Amino acid sequence: MNETLAHVGEFGLIRRIRELLKARGAAGTGLIFGVGDDTAAMTPRPGYDILATCDAMVEGRHFVRSFMSPREIGRRAMAVNVSDIAAMGGVPRWALVSLGLHGDTPAKEVLEEYEGILDELNPLNAVVAGGNITRCDSGSFIDITLIGEVERGRMVKRSGAGHGDAILVTGYPGQAAAGLGFLLEEKAPSAPEALPLIRAYRTPTPRIPEGQAVAATGLANAMIDTSDGFLGDLAHICEESRTGAEIMEDALPVSGPLEWFAERKGVNPQDLVLGESDDYELIFTCAPMHVEALKSAVARVSDVPVSTVGWMTDEPGRFRLIRFGGGKEDLEPKGWDHFSNA
Amino acid sequence: MNETLAHVGEFGLIRRIRELLKARGAAGTGLIFGVGDDTAAMTPRPGYDILATCDAMVEGRHFVRSFMSPREIGRRAMAVNVSDIAAMGGVPRWALVSLGLHGDTPAKEVLEEYEGILDELNPLNAVVAGGNITRCDSGSFIDITLIGEVERGRMVKRSGAGHGDAILVTGYPGQAAAGLGFLLEEKAPSAPEALPLIRAYRTPTPRIPEGQAVAATGLANAMIDTSDGFLGDLAHICEESRTGAEIMEDALPVSGPLEWFAERKGVNPQDLVLGESDDYELIFTCAPMHVEALKSAVARVSDVPVSTVGWMTDEPGRFRLIRFGGGKEDLEPKGWDHFSNA
Repeated sequence: MNETLAHVGEFGLIRRIRELLKARGAAGTGLIFGVGDDTAAMTPRPGYDILATCDAMVEGRHFVRSFMSPREIGRRAMAVNVSDIAAMGGVPRWALVSLGLHGDTPAKEVLEEYEGILDELNPLNAVVAGGNITRCDSGSFIDITLIGEVERGRMVKRSGAGHGDAILVTGYPGQAAAGLGFLLEEKAPSAPEALPLIRAYRTPTPRIPEGQAVAATGLANAMIDTSDGFLGDLAHICEESRTGAEIMEDALPVSGPLEWFAERKGVNPQDLVLGESDDYELIFTCAPMHVEALKSAVARVSDVPVSTVGWMTDEPGRFRLIRFGGGKEDLEPKGWDHFSNA
Repeated sequence: MNETLAHVGEFGLIRRIRELLKARGAAGTGLIFGVGDDTAAMTPRPGYDILATCDAMVEGRHFVRSFMSPREIGRRAMAVNVSDIAAMGGVPRWALVSLGLHGDTPAKEVLEEYEGILDELNPLNAVVAGGNITRCDSGSFIDITLIGEVERGRMVKRSGAGHGDAILVTGYPGQAAAGLGFLLEEKAPSAPEALPLIRAYRTPTPRIPEGQAVAATGLANAMIDTSDGFLGDLAHICEESRTGAEIMEDALPVSGPLEWFAERKGVNPQDLVLGESDDYELIFTCAPMHVEALKSAVARVSDVPVSTVGWMTDEPGRFRLIRFGGGKEDLEPKGWDHFSNA
C-alpha cells in the first residue's frame, strides 16, 4: 500500500514517525521528552556549553530525487548539521527535524528519510527530539536544527587563527563535488573509479571523532568544515581571524579517484580540491610546533589522513597558491554563495 | 535602491542581518557567540532545563504577502514559536532563523522580516543566535527554532491532566481565524469591528508572562497553546493524558468583535471559539480547588482574562459540549491537520 500524506494526515504521519523513532532510534541521554509535544525538553550536562546549528536542504537545489534515495537524503541533511557541530569540537545530542512536504508524497518515503536521519544519529547516541511538519505546494524541504554540547573552554571557533599558523585539513576535499559532477553527466555511473566520489557525495561522513580529538588537545586555534569549499571556508577563517593564507599546491591532498576525474575533465586536480565542495572535511590551524601533536591526536581515533597544506599570513583577505615550481599566484575564494551563483 | 538577493549575495545579506541585529537586537544573556559562525554557542543557566521548538511558515500556505507586511510575517513566525515555549512555562532565550528565499526578493524585505523578529524577541531579552539562508525557486519559507529555558521541575507538559480537572483558557480564542476570514473576504477592511480580529491575526501576542505565572504556581497539571484550534489542542492534552472533556457552551469566552463577526456570517460564535484558530492562547488544567489561585496568579502579571470552560472526564477521546439548555452533544475535534485539510 502506497499511502500518501493526504491519506494518513499530519497527525497520522507524526504517529508513525514516533513509532519508528521508538523502535529504531538510539536511547540518547538528557532528553526529558521529545517528539509528540510541540516543544522538546532536555537537561544540559553541567560543565558543558550548548551548540546549535541549522541547515536546510531544498528539493531541486540541494538534492535531486533521481540522484539520491529518500534514506540518503535524510542522512545527508543530518550529516551537514553534524559536521557543523564537529567543527566546534562538540558532540551532537538532540535534533529538531522540520519538513515541508507535498500532499502526494508517499508516507513511506518520509519514514525512509527518517531512517537515514537515524543512520547518522544512532552511532553518535544522538536523538530526534522534535520537529515540525508542514505542507508546501512546491519544492519540498528538510530543515534540521541540531543541538550539541561541548566541554566548557574546549570550543574551537573560526576567529582564533594567527599569522604563521599551519593550515591542516582532513581527508580529501573536492571528492563529493566531483561525485555530483559525475552524476550530472552520466545518470547511471559505470566507471568503478567514480564510485568513491559518488559515495562521498551521497553519504558524506562528518568528522565528529576527529573534531573532538582536535578540540581536546587545546592546541587548535581555529576550525571550520568545508561545506562552502576548501578555499571558501578557509576564507571564512581568515575573515574572522583577520589573516591571509598561502597554500602549497603540491601539499593538497588529491585522492586517486579525484585524480582520475580531473584527468577525464581535463582540469587541474588541485583546483577541484580548492573549489566547490559538498563534503564535510575539517580545516584547522595551529602553531607549527603543534602540527605533529594534532596529527597524532587525530590518528589515535581515526584512519582519516590529515595534511598540512599551508600557513596563515598577516595580509588579511589575501590568498596565494604556491605552485610546484615556486611561483606564487593570487587566488579568489569562491565559496558556495546561494544567490550570487544563481 | 531596491537591491535583490541576487545582487547582494548570500554573504552580503548575512552581513546586513548581522549589522541589523547588532544595532537593534536585545543584549540577551548566555550567548557565547551567534550569527556569523555556522554554529551558535550558549551557556545554559544552572538549575534550568532547555526547551526547543520549531515551526515553519510557508508562503501561500501560512502567510500571503498581500495580507501581511514583511515585518508582520517575521513577527508572526517568531510569535508561534514563542507561544510554544510559553505553553511549557518557559522563557525564550536564543533563536535560529532559517530562510528559504527567491533570488529576486528585495534584500530590504528580508531585513524587514528580521525587524519583525526583533519586535517579538526584544521585549523578552531573547536574541537571534544563528540560522541559515538558502535559495529556493518556489514558495519561500521561514522556519524558526527557538531555544528557551525553564526552571527544573517547573515545566508543564500536555500529559498531566486528570479526571475532574478544570479546563481554563486565556483570552479569546478564534479571533485570529475570524480576522483571516475577514481578510480573505474583503481585501481592504472597512468595518472598525474587524480591526481587533485582524490585529489578532497579524500580530498575535504569545502568553509568556501568563504561562510563566501558571508554571510558577506548580498547580497546573497540563498546558498547551491553541495553535491547532481550541478543540484540536484540547484533544492533544486529552490524548496525552488519556482523558475526555466536557465544555460548557455558555462559559466559552466570546469577544465583542467575534460576536459581531459570527452574526455577520450567520454562525454560532461558540463554534468559532472551538474551531480553527490562528491565535496563541493557553489552555491549562488544574484541580478545581486551585482555579482561583491560578486565575489570581495570571491576574498579577497580565490583564488577559482567564475563563473556566469545562472539566476533564474519564472517557478518553470523548468530547462533549453542554448546551445552554443543558443538552449534551458530542464534538469532533478538528484541529489544523496540514494534509487532511488539503
